[in-house]
Amino acid sequence: PGPGTRGRKTNTAVTQTDNTRHTILMTAMAMFAKEGVEAVTLRSINAEAGSGNTGAVHYYFRNKDGLVQAIIDFLDENVWKPAVIELNGELKTDPDLWHLLFAGLWPRKRILFDYPWGVDAQTFSFELVTGSSEEYRQSFRKVIQPHNDLLRISLRKLLPNLSEQIFMLRWRFLVIEATVGDWGRTKMQRVVEEPNWCPESERLYVERYVDFATGGFSAPPVH
Amino acid sequence: PGPGTRGRKTNTAVTQTDNTRHTILMTAMAMFAKEGVEAVTLRSINAEAGSGNTGAVHYYFRNKDGLVQAIIDFLDENVWKPAVIELNGELKTDPDLWHLLFAGLWPRKRILFDYPWGVDAQTFSFELVTGSSEEYRQSFRKVIQPHNDLLRISLRKLLPNLSEQIFMLRWRFLVIEATVGDWGRTKMQRVVEEPNWCPESERLYVERYVDFATGGFSAPPVH
Repeated sequence: PGPGTRGRKTNTAVTQTDNTRHTILMTAMAMFAKEGVEAVTLRSINAEAGSGNTGAVHYYFRNKDGLVQAIIDFLDENVWKPAVIELNGELKTDPDLWHLLFAGLWPRKRILFDYPWGVDAQTFSFELVTGSSEEYRQSFRKVIQPHNDLLRISLRKLLPNLSEQIFMLRWRFLVIEATVGDWGRTKMQRVVEEPNWCPESERLYVERYVDFATGGFSAPPVH
Repeated sequence: PGPGTRGRKTNTAVTQTDNTRHTILMTAMAMFAKEGVEAVTLRSINAEAGSGNTGAVHYYFRNKDGLVQAIIDFLDENVWKPAVIELNGELKTDPDLWHLLFAGLWPRKRILFDYPWGVDAQTFSFELVTGSSEEYRQSFRKVIQPHNDLLRISLRKLLPNLSEQIFMLRWRFLVIEATVGDWGRTKMQRVVEEPNWCPESERLYVERYVDFATGGFSAPPVH
């Protein structure tokens, strides 16, 4: 039985329910990020979330698949749908290659600092994308696809002279930096505990990477 | 007591010793790559290597630190020292930016296919570089440093007009692709089991990445 079957609730009860659900969601995302989705048990999430009820995860999410999907939905609402809106706003200004690349890369970097769950979200996403579950990969891909498609198609319009093959390879280099490179750098920052890691240093990094990528996308198509 | 204390050995005995040691080394590298250095116990390595002697790892390598260092030494001999020799050979031909970048990136890609242990070596290296042991990170850095320094200094000579700060950032983009990006792609290739992954496809990927990086390094220094 899910929360909806409990009948009419006071506002306080709804808030309590929402809080518990949200706490479990954030706890699970952090644990999945740290230990891998497969390694974490529902029992350990219940314990870590301190819900005082060993059935809480089951109650709100039924099982691990439901929980993973709920986190993906959360990231859709809080990261990827806003990113599409922001990119559409930028596109109205008729951006050049540099500004389009920056607008495309920045949203996923910014979440690292904008939200307490930003780093966990990045690592969790990476675990899904490189994990062994085809089902999770597909669910996650569905969520990032609107942003990915919009950015790719917009870039393509600015680079009509590249062959499709060369364009798609360069697109892949960009995606690798934006996903694997990003994740790796975050991991390194945590490992070495770089003291000056902050939104400003990250923004400078992205701006200089966009210089580099602008040169890369504009390079002669075949050596 | 190490192998050296066992007194005079026949050639057969030496070969047997070397084989056992090598088997343990390769087994440990694969297990460290798969499960992480911290998670693997010496007991499980002994079992997996099938040495029939629970003390074999201790006998040859004393402890985990000795084993990790022996793998690092193995990679030094088989990957990084040859890579320096190859890069020095390339430097004698007075390469342009493109050819220098290719010569710098290719050796670590090629091992993926040249040796049965190539993929494990890449993953193990990545585990060390992003792992929590400062000691292992430093040991590994010592081994790759001669190649890294030679490539970085040679690139710098071809790009005298970039400020040191901008050059070092672009160098970092290259290193991230060559380490994290590479590792991530190998992981993805294994996850999705891409059927056409082969030395030729990898070489094409690197060549087109070098086009991109050549454009990136040559881009105007500040937007």
